[in-house]
Amino acid sequence: MFFHQQALQYQAKPNEPDAVYARKLQEVIGGQYGEITVAMQYSFQAWNAHIPGKYRDLLFSTAAEEFGHVEMLATMVAQLLEKAPLGITTDAIQDDPAVAAVIGGTDIQQGIVAGAGARPVDSMGNPWSASYVTASGNLLADMTSNLNAEMQGRIQVARLYHMTDDPGIRDLLSFLLARDTMHQNQWAAAVQELKESGLEEMPTPSNFPQNKEASEFAYTTFQFSDGENLADGPWASGPTPDGKSEFSYSPQPNPGVPMPPVTHPDARFYGTTELPNTVEKMAGSVQDKLNRE
Amino acid sequence: MFFHQQALQYQAKPNEPDAVYARKLQEVIGGQYGEITVAMQYSFQAWNAHIPGKYRDLLFSTAAEEFGHVEMLATMVAQLLEKAPLGITTDAIQDDPAVAAVIGGTDIQQGIVAGAGARPVDSMGNPWSASYVTASGNLLADMTSNLNAEMQGRIQVARLYHMTDDPGIRDLLSFLLARDTMHQNQWAAAVQELKESGLEEMPTPSNFPQNKEASEFAYTTFQFSDGENLADGPWASGPTPDGKSEFSYSPQPNPGVPMPPVTHPDARFYGTTELPNTVEKMAGSVQDKLNRE
Amino acid sequence: MFFHQQALQYQAKPNEPDAVYARKLQEVIGGQYGEITVAMQYSFQAWNAHIPGKYRDLLFSTAAEEFGHVEMLATMVAQLLEKAPLGITTDAIQDDPAVAAVIGGTDIQQGIVAGAGARPVDSMGNPWSASYVTASGNLLADMTSNLNAEMQGRIQVARLYHMTDDPGIRDLLSFLLARDTMHQNQWAAAVQELKESGLEEMPTPSNFPQNKEASEFAYTTFQFSDGENLADGPWASGPTPDGKSEFSYSPQPNPGVPMPPVTHPDARFYGTTELPNTVEKMAGSVQDKLNRE
Amino acid sequence: MFFHQQALQYQAKPNEPDAVYARKLQEVIGGQYGEITVAMQYSFQAWNAHIPGKYRDLLFSTAAEEFGHVEMLATMVAQLLEKAPLGITTDAIQDDPAVAAVIGGTDIQQGIVAGAGARPVDSMGNPWSASYVTASGNLLADMTSNLNAEMQGRIQVARLYHMTDDPGIRDLLSFLLARDTMHQNQWAAAVQELKESGLEEMPTPSNFPQNKEASEFAYTTFQFSDGENLADGPWASGPTPDGKSEFSYSPQPNPGVPMPPVTHPDARFYGTTELPNTVEKMAGSVQDKLNRE
Amino acid sequence: MFFHQQALQYQAKPNEPDAVYARKLQEVIGGQYGEITVAMQYSFQAWNAHIPGKYRDLLFSTAAEEFGHVEMLATMVAQLLEKAPLGITTDAIQDDPAVAAVIGGTDIQQGIVAGAGARPVDSMGNPWSASYVTASGNLLADMTSNLNAEMQGRIQVARLYHMTDDPGIRDLLSFLLARDTMHQNQWAAAVQELKESGLEEMPTPSNFPQNKEASEFAYTTFQFSDGENLADGPWASGPTPDGKSEFSYSPQPNPGVPMPPVTHPDARFYGTTELPNTVEKMAGSVQDKLNRE
Amino acid sequence: MFFHQQALQYQAKPNEPDAVYARKLQEVIGGQYGEITVAMQYSFQAWNAHIPGKYRDLLFSTAAEEFGHVEMLATMVAQLLEKAPLGITTDAIQDDPAVAAVIGGTDIQQGIVAGAGARPVDSMGNPWSASYVTASGNLLADMTSNLNAEMQGRIQVARLYHMTDDPGIRDLLSFLLARDTMHQNQWAAAVQELKESGLEEMPTPSNFPQNKEASEFAYTTFQFSDGENLADGPWASGPTPDGKSEFSYSPQPNPGVPMPPVTHPDARFYGTTELPNTVEKMAGSVQDKLNRE
Repeated sequence: MFFHQQALQYQAKPNEPDAVYARKLQEVIGGQYGEITVAMQYSFQAWNAHIPGKYRDLLFSTAAEEFGHVEMLATMVAQLLEKAPLGITTDAIQDDPAVAAVIGGTDIQQGIVAGAGARPVDSMGNPWSASYVTASGNLLADMTSNLNAEMQGRIQVARLYHMTDDPGIRDLLSFLLARDTMHQNQWAAAVQELKESGLEEMPTPSNFPQNKEASEFAYTTFQFSDGENLADGPWASGPTPDGKSEFSYSPQPNPGVPMPPVTHPDARFYGTTELPNTVEKMAGSVQDKLNRE
Repeated sequence: MFFHQQALQYQAKPNEPDAVYARKLQEVIGGQYGEITVAMQYSFQAWNAHIPGKYRDLLFSTAAEEFGHVEMLATMVAQLLEKAPLGITTDAIQDDPAVAAVIGGTDIQQGIVAGAGARPVDSMGNPWSASYVTASGNLLADMTSNLNAEMQGRIQVARLYHMTDDPGIRDLLSFLLARDTMHQNQWAAAVQELKESGLEEMPTPSNFPQNKEASEFAYTTFQFSDGENLADGPWASGPTPDGKSEFSYSPQPNPGVPMPPVTHPDARFYGTTELPNTVEKMAGSVQDKLNRE
Repeated sequence: MFFHQQALQYQAKPNEPDAVYARKLQEVIGGQYGEITVAMQYSFQAWNAHIPGKYRDLLFSTAAEEFGHVEMLATMVAQLLEKAPLGITTDAIQDDPAVAAVIGGTDIQQGIVAGAGARPVDSMGNPWSASYVTASGNLLADMTSNLNAEMQGRIQVARLYHMTDDPGIRDLLSFLLARDTMHQNQWAAAVQELKESGLEEMPTPSNFPQNKEASEFAYTTFQFSDGENLADGPWASGPTPDGKSEFSYSPQPNPGVPMPPVTHPDARFYGTTELPNTVEKMAGSVQDKLNRE
Repeated sequence: MFFHQQALQYQAKPNEPDAVYARKLQEVIGGQYGEITVAMQYSFQAWNAHIPGKYRDLLFSTAAEEFGHVEMLATMVAQLLEKAPLGITTDAIQDDPAVAAVIGGTDIQQGIVAGAGARPVDSMGNPWSASYVTASGNLLADMTSNLNAEMQGRIQVARLYHMTDDPGIRDLLSFLLARDTMHQNQWAAAVQELKESGLEEMPTPSNFPQNKEASEFAYTTFQFSDGENLADGPWASGPTPDGKSEFSYSPQPNPGVPMPPVTHPDARFYGTTELPNTVEKMAGSVQDKLNRE
Repeated sequence: MFFHQQALQYQAKPNEPDAVYARKLQEVIGGQYGEITVAMQYSFQAWNAHIPGKYRDLLFSTAAEEFGHVEMLATMVAQLLEKAPLGITTDAIQDDPAVAAVIGGTDIQQGIVAGAGARPVDSMGNPWSASYVTASGNLLADMTSNLNAEMQGRIQVARLYHMTDDPGIRDLLSFLLARDTMHQNQWAAAVQELKESGLEEMPTPSNFPQNKEASEFAYTTFQFSDGENLADGPWASGPTPDGKSEFSYSPQPNPGVPMPPVTHPDARFYGTTELPNTVEKMAGSVQDKLNRE
Repeated sequence: MFFHQQALQYQAKPNEPDAVYARKLQEVIGGQYGEITVAMQYSFQAWNAHIPGKYRDLLFSTAAEEFGHVEMLATMVAQLLEKAPLGITTDAIQDDPAVAAVIGGTDIQQGIVAGAGARPVDSMGNPWSASYVTASGNLLADMTSNLNAEMQGRIQVARLYHMTDDPGIRDLLSFLLARDTMHQNQWAAAVQELKESGLEEMPTPSNFPQNKEASEFAYTTFQFSDGENLADGPWASGPTPDGKSEFSYSPQPNPGVPMPPVTHPDARFYGTTELPNTVEKMAGSVQDKLNRE
């Protein structure tokens, strides 16, 4: 169950209205790595978890916090838009060229659809999609996904930080940056703990029987692009991070195999094929069959 | 530039047709973590890279390999469908109940749309979307994303492995599993090298000035869910993985702040507000204004 | 801020596993009118509200409750899938035809992607999309949308009720049905109160100046389809629900006006037009211009 | 069958070109509540109707009218774009700052893709999606959805009205506002008639046997958010709109039940679980099984 | 304006209910090349047309016909579903294995969402999307697109024809096949007329000044794949279809140019770059700048 | 298998940065008819081909070339953005109105998400979708689709050509225009060859037995719109392009048939129907049944 408290985890109050920035903030509300994504992702990971206890507690707790982050950002957006101009005339632009920027740079639907409010979309207007969510039931993979999400999220907030000099906005972003720092560290710590506990290791899924893998291809870098430095990386020699082998390097791909022959599905799929023409007899009977059926 | 060779990196030939399995394989062709995703993701990361040399070489090389994996899987699907039944009659089901499974379990568009061929969609028929791609220009974040992608991908292939006993399919999957093992190790090694080289560290982006972050919130676990084991994890005490601080733990969230007052945007947005009613005079003038404009 | 409690609002425990039904339940988790939709919709309506007090309290409270409903359903789905078969052989189908139904009828991604867990998608696998959300800032319109959402939701749960005889599932559905009954009544009561308070009336938005509307078209039913009973409804005569006029009826549409001439945009858009051919001189100069630029 | 007449239901002719406004109009063509939505929604409701006669006649007739509204708006957009500038140079901006607004504020695809024409998308460029359509076969729910659609639509047109002072555009909008007024009244009247006729009542679906509902939860407001005014609304006490009960109020949620234990699906889903580690013997056999299969 | 007549262009009445087939028919209602696509595509092409007269008349006329085809198919689907089973028990499957096929093979939302009715989606449940529509304002391109749409559509209907032996369904399909034959011929005739009239030629757009094209690359086949028969086609030698040149053939691509250096955007984008590390002095100043801003 | 060479097929280097144009170029990278579409479309057509040899060689070769075109455009975009401004202040706009255009006209996600890089999206920010891809297995239809794709693509590049005067950008576009010219001619030649070889003819699919088509409707233009010039086109009389008949013309549609009666599905779908009310006895038993089940 979820409970709501009519308070914000941190102040979210701009010094000035800024309709153009209100659009940019949508990215961290409803974008691929916005707060809705992490709130939903951690929730579904918790609901699909197969171990009770601390990992699931961490998922539930962080999920609930992230829903509150959506709230802070939505509240901020509404205030940035509160004084947003609605009807712009050409005259206004001549008086102040900055008005032109506002016309072009706003999220039109924040106005026409939401009445000067936030929307569950990204900065280009794409509605948030649950296809952003990762929840596989495998904690090592999922927490690596979470680590990435917090990295991408912090990068985006850092970029947004430099796109405004409004102290109120920057104050909120400084808080989000700090929580992203925390959450990066938290998932990194959880990943480390998971591995050390032996619950899951690399390569994930670690329980998959290694004898069923084509192991001769499991630790070799094949070169598919003609850059000159591929062999210089740690992925071309030395011990592998999973602790199970040594990397090797091949300056070209493994020798391939010929493609199998093209398929000839049932004639009733009407794919174009050479058969009706070159093999006349069969073609005849195929056509007969088509006519009959 | 890309060049194509009419060969496969590994054999892709089923022993038997299996239209139901042909649908399941779509997941690793056109799903969120299918081969199209990694091929496109590594390509865009390479095109947006800001360092020449080994990291970009690795991205280009792996991208090209992954396009070839799409090809192997598409080739496999076409063969699985080559003998797929098209028109099923009720009689056929009575004779063999397995026919019923085929009716319900196939990807209908593999037949009606593709003529017994593979499609750029996932196992539930969702078209592949570029919103799956991550390419931020920040290599630490992006290669963490790549590590996750190879983990999710290997988990899915492992699950698929147990859903068939066809030796030909399993042979191909054993190859894909091995390459996923390689790629997990490769990205893990690259992440490690990046950190050691000092090019990028945690928290990412590591160049962001720490004095601009609300640092009092940067290393504390706040409890937002009533599970009892949250404090037991390594995220609640001890050194943080970024090497910059110690975790602390708070059994409840930080005290919040009151929500700011609701906004009252321009009356011409026609949001419902108490103003026209409770503040009659202002309301009057607002209505006057609406009438005039 | 949101807080999570590790409890469910109502028991969610099936008597038997049922992977086919687990797919059907996805509709009320992640479908157009599933629980994610109402949770997000009521949240955004609250964040965009322009009146403090009871209406916003109702939105926040119901939003939080609905997030808990997502949780109950996700928990139910995981249990329905806990014993779901993974690898089906042809032999199994011959022994038990019901296995065929399971093969065809399951959500494949619940297995391959989520590892036997719930997903934020609908019953056909479409990821939940924020384009389902309605939040305009106008409470009369939005609460009418909420009333519709609870009606559609209750209809879907009622249909789902008859698709199973599992007492555990039906128990949960009986709870959801009751809450939908409550929420239908709640939004209907709120709509009524809003109108009576004069905050908003029909036609919405009620503040829009009526003299700016083409009022001669505001209360007439025009007949655009040749059904014989259109004039029999209350929309063809008698007082209008907004209390402002009488309905009238016209057995055909209002007389239209001729379509304006086709447009001839800049030649550099390369639309096909008669001009270059029929008006040779102009065409010449257009081509000259294209050649120069 | 549908027939087309080369005439418009109302004049659609702007006084001046305005490429920025042409983008805004896309919202009511191809947005969630644009004319395509209502045209398609009423069509599918008619095709799925289970009663012949006046309700279906109303659906068919209004559907056909709405297709004509798409046409008026598309015609308007093409004219607004007819003189739209194509290639803007920096010099032009220095001469007239308004040019900057045009650069930023236009729908780029109206130019590059449609050649200065309308597109079936919303104002942020999202293609119209059939997921906007509601057609359940239940007329009370669907006509409530229609009422909402006409409310949202009229609000959007009203907002658009204030974003231009072009008399030609405003003339068209005044017509659309009037028809939205009509359609709001029409669906409200139809909803009322449906209820009075007893064909359908609240709670919808009204035929669902009430004894199968957990009736003790059907008329109570539970408080899930700490706002202070929740109990002040008509949803907390007094008769319920469905006429079947009295509202009651609970200042906290009903007591929940403990979450069921986490699930442990088949080990071949490779979810992370404590079992292989803590229950060594079982884990052993699971691993044996994985190795064998 | 559009008008509706309560009649069908052709009978649409199945002999038997068939819920599995009702799902398959969705492909030609709401799929990429279903009837909604062509109805909307021809409408938008007509609204964006820049020549009055016969071409636009053809677009409007065919558009209106296609809306009627959606209607026939939706009507057919509702009848196929009228007797569809709703709640299946395990017992029923044991009695009749065909029931298993129905469980797995139906469109679940046709039941739960539409109440046994048609939906604006394809056979895998993807909602129809306006991104399927092509309307560029260039008639030669657009009518080539139309020709393709009618080809793809007829292929799909032909495939569907063989997936049923119900005489009523086949009767409707025989009509749709005939109209697709007509429409293929119609667009082919229109394309031919357009070219002969000189309104538009290949390469489209034909008005684009040829001297602005890198003409040395305009008629050569470069080989990018190692198949042995590429040079055997008419695209490798002989006159080109646009009548302006001769094809030539090159057994490898044109020599490429080196990739330009990687970019180094503003440091405040936090892309990973070698600069801060290898060029210490500059890095210092960049960091100083970040700290200051 | 695909191989990558770190070279471009043609130079891609702008003279000046231009963040607004960088957004416009996205259309031909990730739009409906952008380079990703053709690369993927030709790949899937090759993988689903049923004839080995020259047609498949052409598909593979062109597919590989098109992936290289994505690369050239992505490289161009990164350079256009390299000096893109990040944080704009109001002061800057006052100094130079052109800055306002940049604010409004850029792709926000190229900055915030990609760190000044290209993205797999179109010019309005819609992620590329595999639903743009056509690959039916029927070569005549698919190559007609390819011809259309190259036409639409060349039109878009031509429009883009006039939207810049940067010599570097225009140089790249002149190359793309030339390759589109080649590819239009190539697919036209392939279509012609296919027909002449008899592998496939119009109407496609040409193997479908003509006696199963309702041939009386196969060559007639019915008038569904009241334009006056419909009969003037070559589609109204004269020989049909498939060489099999003569066109005929009907100034109105064929006489339709009455719509079949509305359906009455199982009462447990809770559609609104007249039955429970008008036929009381049956209604009673239906309600009894609902109560029991």
